[in-house]
Amino acid sequence: MEEAIVAADTAWILAAFAAVSLMVPGLAMFYGGMVSAKNTLNMAMMTFGAFAVVGILWVLFGYSAVLGNSLGGAGLLGDPLEALGLASMLTAPEVPALPPALVAGFQLLFAAITVALISGAVADRMKFGAWMVFAGVWATLVYFPVAHWVFAFDSADGSITGGWIANKLAAVDFAGGTAVHVNAGVAALALVLVLGKRGNFANPPRPHSLPLTMLGAGILLFGWFGFNGGSALSAGNSAAVVVLNTLAAACAGICAWLLVEKLREGHATSLGASSGLISALVGITPACGAVSPMGALLIGGAAGALCCLAVSIKFRLGYDDSLDVVGIHMVGGILGTLLIGFIADPKAPNGVAGLLYGGGVDLLWRQTVAVVAVLAYSFIVTWLIAKALDKTMGLRVHHEKEAEGLDVAVHGESAYAMETIPVASVPVAEAEAVEAAEAITTDAVEAPVR
Amino acid sequence: MEEAIVAADTAWILAAFAAVSLMVPGLAMFYGGMVSAKNTLNMAMMTFGAFAVVGILWVLFGYSAVLGNSLGGAGLLGDPLEALGLASMLTAPEVPALPPALVAGFQLLFAAITVALISGAVADRMKFGAWMVFAGVWATLVYFPVAHWVFAFDSADGSITGGWIANKLAAVDFAGGTAVHVNAGVAALALVLVLGKRGNFANPPRPHSLPLTMLGAGILLFGWFGFNGGSALSAGNSAAVVVLNTLAAACAGICAWLLVEKLREGHATSLGASSGLISALVGITPACGAVSPMGALLIGGAAGALCCLAVSIKFRLGYDDSLDVVGIHMVGGILGTLLIGFIADPKAPNGVAGLLYGGGVDLLWRQTVAVVAVLAYSFIVTWLIAKALDKTMGLRVHHEKEAEGLDVAVHGESAYAMETIPVASVPVAEAEAVEAAEAITTDAVEAPVR
Amino acid sequence: MEEAIVAADTAWILAAFAAVSLMVPGLAMFYGGMVSAKNTLNMAMMTFGAFAVVGILWVLFGYSAVLGNSLGGAGLLGDPLEALGLASMLTAPEVPALPPALVAGFQLLFAAITVALISGAVADRMKFGAWMVFAGVWATLVYFPVAHWVFAFDSADGSITGGWIANKLAAVDFAGGTAVHVNAGVAALALVLVLGKRGNFANPPRPHSLPLTMLGAGILLFGWFGFNGGSALSAGNSAAVVVLNTLAAACAGICAWLLVEKLREGHATSLGASSGLISALVGITPACGAVSPMGALLIGGAAGALCCLAVSIKFRLGYDDSLDVVGIHMVGGILGTLLIGFIADPKAPNGVAGLLYGGGVDLLWRQTVAVVAVLAYSFIVTWLIAKALDKTMGLRVHHEKEAEGLDVAVHGESAYAMETIPVASVPVAEAEAVEAAEAITTDAVEAPVR
Repeated sequence: MEEAIVAADTAWILAAFAAVSLMVPGLAMFYGGMVSAKNTLNMAMMTFGAFAVVGILWVLFGYSAVLGNSLGGAGLLGDPLEALGLASMLTAPEVPALPPALVAGFQLLFAAITVALISGAVADRMKFGAWMVFAGVWATLVYFPVAHWVFAFDSADGSITGGWIANKLAAVDFAGGTAVHVNAGVAALALVLVLGKRGNFANPPRPHSLPLTMLGAGILLFGWFGFNGGSALSAGNSAAVVVLNTLAAACAGICAWLLVEKLREGHATSLGASSGLISALVGITPACGAVSPMGALLIGGAAGALCCLAVSIKFRLGYDDSLDVVGIHMVGGILGTLLIGFIADPKAPNGVAGLLYGGGVDLLWRQTVAVVAVLAYSFIVTWLIAKALDKTMGLRVHHEKEAEGLDVAVHGESAYAMETIPVASVPVAEAEAVEAAEAITTDAVEAPVR
Repeated sequence: MEEAIVAADTAWILAAFAAVSLMVPGLAMFYGGMVSAKNTLNMAMMTFGAFAVVGILWVLFGYSAVLGNSLGGAGLLGDPLEALGLASMLTAPEVPALPPALVAGFQLLFAAITVALISGAVADRMKFGAWMVFAGVWATLVYFPVAHWVFAFDSADGSITGGWIANKLAAVDFAGGTAVHVNAGVAALALVLVLGKRGNFANPPRPHSLPLTMLGAGILLFGWFGFNGGSALSAGNSAAVVVLNTLAAACAGICAWLLVEKLREGHATSLGASSGLISALVGITPACGAVSPMGALLIGGAAGALCCLAVSIKFRLGYDDSLDVVGIHMVGGILGTLLIGFIADPKAPNGVAGLLYGGGVDLLWRQTVAVVAVLAYSFIVTWLIAKALDKTMGLRVHHEKEAEGLDVAVHGESAYAMETIPVASVPVAEAEAVEAAEAITTDAVEAPVR
Repeated sequence: MEEAIVAADTAWILAAFAAVSLMVPGLAMFYGGMVSAKNTLNMAMMTFGAFAVVGILWVLFGYSAVLGNSLGGAGLLGDPLEALGLASMLTAPEVPALPPALVAGFQLLFAAITVALISGAVADRMKFGAWMVFAGVWATLVYFPVAHWVFAFDSADGSITGGWIANKLAAVDFAGGTAVHVNAGVAALALVLVLGKRGNFANPPRPHSLPLTMLGAGILLFGWFGFNGGSALSAGNSAAVVVLNTLAAACAGICAWLLVEKLREGHATSLGASSGLISALVGITPACGAVSPMGALLIGGAAGALCCLAVSIKFRLGYDDSLDVVGIHMVGGILGTLLIGFIADPKAPNGVAGLLYGGGVDLLWRQTVAVVAVLAYSFIVTWLIAKALDKTMGLRVHHEKEAEGLDVAVHGESAYAMETIPVASVPVAEAEAVEAAEAITTDAVEAPVR
């Protein structure tokens, strides 16, 4: 019986794992569409590259650092030597339990995506080699410890000690509001403070392909169901509530952002719909197991509205968070994590009560401590890493390369080669309208014919 | 034991739910690629917007209206107050059963996608605000009742009364041939009759990105396995037969459309392959649990061929169903629903026999009644909604905005900013061919360098 | 109990099946992005077309030819008449087991994708009709037998005889290193030897959309987890190890290719990251159940590095394997299959020991025989098919059509219609820079306004 339940849980986590893996191209397209056409490959490569580097480190020692027994029982870092190379993952556990190899694979993707999230802030100007080194160092010094704090639970029999936020503080963070989003968001802030602004910060280039960004946002929505729903680590009512809450928040986030920007700027934009969607998903990530569907609507709506306001702060304060990682992931992550303290519903899977549900401020201060701890640790260590890399290998490309665009200057490629599109059979009546323009344009569009 | 089986069912429905969620960007890209580049964001926004609005309404009262106990036992509408806000969904059912939160989330996506399907018909000319209002009103007045008719089954103990088509009429509609496709298709017809034709109806713009449309079609194929397979609500032989039939139909639909258009017009097109695929998926949706794989090939092939012929009717009858929602969803949905009456195989999961399998006309007339009822109700109520909105807020953008394109005129954005693509390292020999053209084209393609 | 375990297995294989289905658009975009804009639809159509044709044949007799009882017990081909039309798939097996309809659907996708893989080699110059016929004939004469050799296992009670490689030779090929990748790769070689080189082979066109290629590669990664993980046919520790190994290999493959090309050519490219990813996935496909995570890193890294070197061979030897199907699938498939002979870890799910784990050369020679057999059979039969088709219907388009591009010449379509993109609200300061260029470019970009 227990064995069959575990098989069902395994089935769902396998599927959730696969869904999260699609966030890799999803994020690459989401960010890649938002930059200019001369930097889009570089953007996507930062996601792919972070995935590759972090994945290797995860197999080597990252899993152990996150989910291994706490060094000295301190709850600060798992023993990085505990499962070196994951060789111990090949055999099934003796008692029915989720295969450790599956948990390892699932959590690898969390690490990789968290690092990749940061890349949105440094668009258009960071050395690719420096990014790859940063990805590996940041994962090791920031993500692995913080993920241990939040995601490593003490074993039931007390033989394994997990992280301090999950156990001693007992803050609620279902799928990584602090460890993933606050962490990546504030790290993005620290990194861009060292990296500096783009030359065109005041007049940033328009997104070169908003359909790509919308596609990416939609893929991220899909992946998020694996991310949040899979964090239940079982195929039961908890996962069901989690995905319903995630879905409800997503819908509210889109509407809220569109409403706010329509009122402020007169247009409901596709970039706004995509951003509102992601803001809401960020906000619900820590809370998806702690609130009711109405609470999820509230968190999603609040995140959509607040992040819409937050993304313009960078122009006032003058830090170049190019694709709004701070404004969306840090702000949305903080919001969602703190709102749990107010509206956690004790009937939800987490079973805790927020202030408005009679739980007093007990939960709220735990949430606050978790947020502050992650903010402080991640900001400081990220800043130190960035400074160290900047002094040694240098973080930033030469300004001529920045002007040329990183795709050509760094990767030796350009994203598109559209000069070969032939104009197909144009319907007759339309052809006349086209003809006038053709004297000027046909060569430009068709040449060179090979 | 029962508990473990339910866990396995839950695992599959969680995965199916996630798969269906990818239909949101899938549909946005499918439609977005088919319109001109100046209207593509608007197209995608209609899908994202419908998803957001309908999702919120679903949480508030939509679930209850569809799956709640029938008001007065009439089988016409569920009690919309039964599970207001879905607060009752947080706890697991007392006896082993699929978590109600999962069913609610899964069905939310059905509602959202059905509404979004309609948007293909109104491309290039509808006010975005009017669309958002239409989405909410149509979901409430048309989708929720019709979905109750088709998807709400009486409980085994008789304590809960479901919809009249599912129970009293006992027509077979596995995953929404009537409630989703006939419903959306005929609603599209009613809406465009009120909305009117595009200025360029006679010479519609070419699809601006067929790769985007093919990608969208492929994503929809993936999502459809969740849509149809998840409708089995269990992880067993029924779901297996359903996905196999869905797959077989898809293959036949592509081939059939390509053959018909090759014979009629001389080319096998990518738009045809995508359309044939979707037509077949529509056709098999009601039938996927009722026929054999050979029957699925037949339905898919018939849908691909018939819809290929049906999409040109709009030019003869003069309604501007821009992206062929009527020709594909209404026609394909009717076809699939009626063909069940002929070729339902009693060995298939639904266990009913069509005319050719010795079942007589018993099933066929039930199928016909279901189709006619949905056609009539949806057409009339949609037409009334459209008229009401047109008289009040107005459905249609000003013709200058239509000429300008809705992306800029309505959303203040344009889909692409390609002027910054630099030309990368061109291979030597090729460079000569390029050089001739460059005097004319380089500036056009490269400028402005930022 | 057994029944509940089977339900869990079914849940995972349903999800894995769906994931694999997304490889259809994934591959279409991966290949479609790599060719010039005038051939991208043709490229995508070859994937969609192969999927459709092979799917129909699979339902008719392909399943039986692959998974039916071996004709004469020879292990060479299943009885193609055993489950004609899959009519016997409707009912659940009498003892708890994976639904046969699900296995049939899952394996249909393997067949379809294997055929579609070949299309990358023949880019830009093959008749679409000839491709469709080739797809059907090749599936019948090459894929079905070879898949029987590798994927058809003898039944436990001896009543059903499977293929000779799986049973008599007992080579290890978890998910198709030989049957899928070596098979498709060497078939691609044979086919292009008959087909001949493109006119611009020496200076092939640049990929017209690398974002599309990266998106495709990312989607393929997702699908591969279904492909490899689903091949475990159960939701347990085996599938978990398989997906972890697949993931680890993918990360190493990206890094390895990027390093090699950075050292050789000075740039780490997005095409390289995508290619390294796919190379590694190919390499780990046969080995994902046989090695440790460290072994997976090694295989992924070796595949990424070796394939990066292998793809340039075509220029030296003069065969036009346009998108490197030979260099990636044949080379990567051989590498992965043979490396099992060295580093198979007996603690891994396959439970076999390679040379370095004390297994001697026993496994290595079995792996070698499997590779050589598939190489020889597939090459010879493919060459004969290609010759026969070339003599009869002709494989190659007229060189004028090749110059024009197959999208227009063959399909009567062009991939993009970008002339209608309006330039949206340009930020003020940027506008000046744009203005200079506009005299030349605005008409080209905006016209014709409809």
